[in-house]
Amino acid sequence: MSHERDPKRDGLAVARRRFLSAVAASGAAAGLTGLVRPAQAANPDNLPPNEPEWARVLGPGVDDRGYGLPSIYEKHVKRRWVPWLTASSESTVNFTPLQDLHGFVTPNGVCFERHHSGRAEIDPEDHRLIIHGLVDKPLMFTVEDLKRMPSESHFYFCECAANSGMEWRNAQLNGVQFTHGMVHCVHWTGVPLRVLFEQTGLKPNAKWVLAEGADGAAMTRSIPMEKALDDCLVAYAQNGEALRPEQGYPIRLVVPGFEANMWVKWLRRLEVGDQAWYHREETSKYTDLLPSGKAYIFSWVMEAKSVITFPCPEKPLNGPGYYSVRGLAWSGRGRITRVDVSFDGGRNWQTAKLQDPVYPKCLTRFEIPWRWNGERALLVSRAIDETGYVQPTMYELQKVRGVESVYHNNGQQVWEVKPSGEVENVRLRYVNA
Amino acid sequence: MSHERDPKRDGLAVARRRFLSAVAASGAAAGLTGLVRPAQAANPDNLPPNEPEWARVLGPGVDDRGYGLPSIYEKHVKRRWVPWLTASSESTVNFTPLQDLHGFVTPNGVCFERHHSGRAEIDPEDHRLIIHGLVDKPLMFTVEDLKRMPSESHFYFCECAANSGMEWRNAQLNGVQFTHGMVHCVHWTGVPLRVLFEQTGLKPNAKWVLAEGADGAAMTRSIPMEKALDDCLVAYAQNGEALRPEQGYPIRLVVPGFEANMWVKWLRRLEVGDQAWYHREETSKYTDLLPSGKAYIFSWVMEAKSVITFPCPEKPLNGPGYYSVRGLAWSGRGRITRVDVSFDGGRNWQTAKLQDPVYPKCLTRFEIPWRWNGERALLVSRAIDETGYVQPTMYELQKVRGVESVYHNNGQQVWEVKPSGEVENVRLRYVNA
Repeated sequence: MSHERDPKRDGLAVARRRFLSAVAASGAAAGLTGLVRPAQAANPDNLPPNEPEWARVLGPGVDDRGYGLPSIYEKHVKRRWVPWLTASSESTVNFTPLQDLHGFVTPNGVCFERHHSGRAEIDPEDHRLIIHGLVDKPLMFTVEDLKRMPSESHFYFCECAANSGMEWRNAQLNGVQFTHGMVHCVHWTGVPLRVLFEQTGLKPNAKWVLAEGADGAAMTRSIPMEKALDDCLVAYAQNGEALRPEQGYPIRLVVPGFEANMWVKWLRRLEVGDQAWYHREETSKYTDLLPSGKAYIFSWVMEAKSVITFPCPEKPLNGPGYYSVRGLAWSGRGRITRVDVSFDGGRNWQTAKLQDPVYPKCLTRFEIPWRWNGERALLVSRAIDETGYVQPTMYELQKVRGVESVYHNNGQQVWEVKPSGEVENVRLRYVNA
Repeated sequence: MSHERDPKRDGLAVARRRFLSAVAASGAAAGLTGLVRPAQAANPDNLPPNEPEWARVLGPGVDDRGYGLPSIYEKHVKRRWVPWLTASSESTVNFTPLQDLHGFVTPNGVCFERHHSGRAEIDPEDHRLIIHGLVDKPLMFTVEDLKRMPSESHFYFCECAANSGMEWRNAQLNGVQFTHGMVHCVHWTGVPLRVLFEQTGLKPNAKWVLAEGADGAAMTRSIPMEKALDDCLVAYAQNGEALRPEQGYPIRLVVPGFEANMWVKWLRRLEVGDQAWYHREETSKYTDLLPSGKAYIFSWVMEAKSVITFPCPEKPLNGPGYYSVRGLAWSGRGRITRVDVSFDGGRNWQTAKLQDPVYPKCLTRFEIPWRWNGERALLVSRAIDETGYVQPTMYELQKVRGVESVYHNNGQQVWEVKPSGEVENVRLRYVNA
C-alpha cells in the first residue's frame, strides 16, 4: 500500500547533496550572468506589487472546450505557405513553424502538409484497404479490422524530399520555417505491413509493393518488399489521436527514413509485384538531373541533416549574454550520434548536447550554451549519424550533384547573427564565397 | 553523398528472409482468423467498384488551416465532465477520453483539466516568476529569461490524486473516461528547478519549496527540496508547442510521479523555507481519513496503476474472434516492468506485451491478443513497477485505507464483457462479492 512506503527519501537526499557540492565546486551560480535579473529590492519576500487581473478573477470553467486550442497569445505559431511555389494551393505545401517548437515532437496542428490534389475528406466507415497482386489470398480490410490487429507505436520523422530544395535554385528564403519546415515528427500507431502480409501470404517473386492513395491524385509509389517487411506501418494514429485529415485520415503508409512522398496518405490499395512500377511520382518527379546527364532515381533515404532553430531569422537575439542555442538533427539511416555547432562559419566546431531520447529515424533536439559578445557571428550545425556519415556543406553537395537538383538537399545551414541581433540566411552567399 | 550509398539492401534482405521463414514456421497466416474478410472475389485485382467521391474531386488547399484540427468524423473524441461532481464548472474537472487514444502520448487538445478558480488567461509578456525566501539572492524571471536557459524535455504522466476517486464512494461510473480519465502524458520541455536554484543559491536550512499559481485561487503546495532538486521542471511547452492555457500557460511546475495538484499551473512564485506550509490544499484537501482516525497526508507519489482501454464500456466488442486487448499502465516510482491481464476476473493471469518505449513515470501501452469466444468474461489488468510493487485489488486497498478515502485509488479495474459484446464496469460488485 502506498502510505506504508517512504517516498524515496534516500535517493532524494543524494540528489540534494549532489546539487550542493556541484554548486560549491563549479561556482555555477555565476554561470548564467547576463541572463537573469534581480528581483525588485523593495519587496523580495512579497508578490510583485501590481496584482494582474487574472489573479483576481474567476476564469472560464471547463464546459467550453471539449477539444482545446492554444493560447490566443500563440496565434503566430502556425503553418505558412508560399503562394508562388506551385500552381495552386491544392498542389502545394505549407511549412512547420520549427522556430516556435520545443523538444522533438511536432504538435499535430502544425505538421507540414503537401498534397497533389488537395486534402481528401474521408468517411472512415466507407474506406477500405485492399491487398492484391502476388499474394496467396487477396484481402480487403476496414479501418476497424486494422485496429483489432497487433499494433506498434514509434516516433519517426517525415521529411519531404524537396525540403530545403528552393535553395538549389537560389531562391534563398529568410526563415527556418521555409528553409527546413517540410519535416515533422510524431508518434505513429498502426499495423506493421508484415502483419498484413502474414495474412495474405506472399508469392516467391513478390519483390515490390505499390501503394496507392484514395485522393483525387491517386498518389502511387513503388516500395521494395524488403523495406515493407522491415519497418513500414499502416498508421491510423499520430501523437495518440486519429491521423489528421491532411496526414491521410483514416490511414496512411509510414515508411521510416524514406522521403515523405512514399508515405502514401489516404491509403486504399497495396499491390504486390515483381518489379517497380515507374509511375509518375518516381520518374517525372522525385528524381534529380545529375551533371552526368543521368537521373538520380529511387533516392529514397533522407540523409543526415540538421538546422539551428534558435537563433534563426524569425527568432533574433535580444542583446549580448548567455543563450541556449538549439536545433534539430535527423537521419533516415538510424540514430544521430553527434551534432557539432560552429559560431565562426565552420572553422571551429564544438559538440552539442543531445537531448534524450535519441531514437532512430526520429528528430533529435540538440542544445549548446553560447555567450554572445554582440559581434557578427556565423552559426552552422552538422549532424553525424550512426553510419558515420557527416552532413556535408552545400558546396560539397553541389560538387557531386550539380546545381539542377531540387530534392535531397541536406547541406549545412548557415545563419549570420548581426550586431543588432538580427539573423539572416546566408547559406548561398557563404558556400559560394 | 547520399546517392553513392546503398540503401541497406543487406539488412533489408535479412528482414525479408526472417519474415518468410517466420511465416513458414508458425503458420502465422492463419493466426488472425475471424478478423479479416476476403477481398471481393469478382475483382481481386481492381479497386472496389464504387469509386467514392473523395477519389474524384480536388480537395481543399492548404490555405485554410494554419493550425489544423481533427477530422469531422472524430468529434466524439473530446474531454467530458460530470456536472454534479463539484459546485461549478470553474472548480471541476473534465476527463481525458482514454478509450479513443493510441500509444502513450496524450494529444494536447484532450488532456484532462482540473481548476480551482477556472482557467487563467495570461499574457506571457506580463508574467513573472519570483524566487525568494531562504536563498542567497532573490531573483525574478520573465518567460523569455527561462527559455534562454538550458532546457530538458521528458515524457511524464500527470494524474490527479482523485482519479478513480468516485469509486470509493460507490459512484460507479460506466466508462473508462470517467473512471480513469484524470491522467494525461505529454512531452514536457522546461528548465530544471535545480538550474534556477543554482542562480539564486540556497541557504543551508533550505528544506522546502512553496509553489504558488497566478490564478484567482493562488494554488499553493509545499514540495520537499530533495524532490525539487531531483527532477522537477518549470515547463513552458507540452508536446512541442507552448503549454495550453488550461495546463498553466505560460509556465507550470512539473513534479514527476507526484499527484497533479502539486504541479502548480500559471506558476508565479517559489518560496524557499525550512518547513512545510500546511496550506489548504495539503491539509483540508488532498488528505484521506484512515480507519485509525488519523489523516493520510503528504501522500504525494502516484502508485502503480493500470486499466484496460479496449474493450471498455465505451468500446464494446463486435462479435467473437480475434482482438488486440489494450491498456495503459503507469507508476510514480519509476518504470513499469510488467502488466498482467486476466480474462476470468483475476483467477488466471497472462503477461501482456509492453510497447516500446517504457519510460519512468510515464504512461506505458500494453497489448495482449485475445480470441473472444462470445461468452461472458471478466477483464482485469494489474501493473508491476521497478520497485516490485504490484497494483492491488480495490478490496486489498480498502482493507488498509477503509472506505472514507477519495484520493489515491489505484485498485484494479474490472470490466465485464457480456455475450452481447457490451462492457460494464463491475469493479465494486466484484470486489465486494
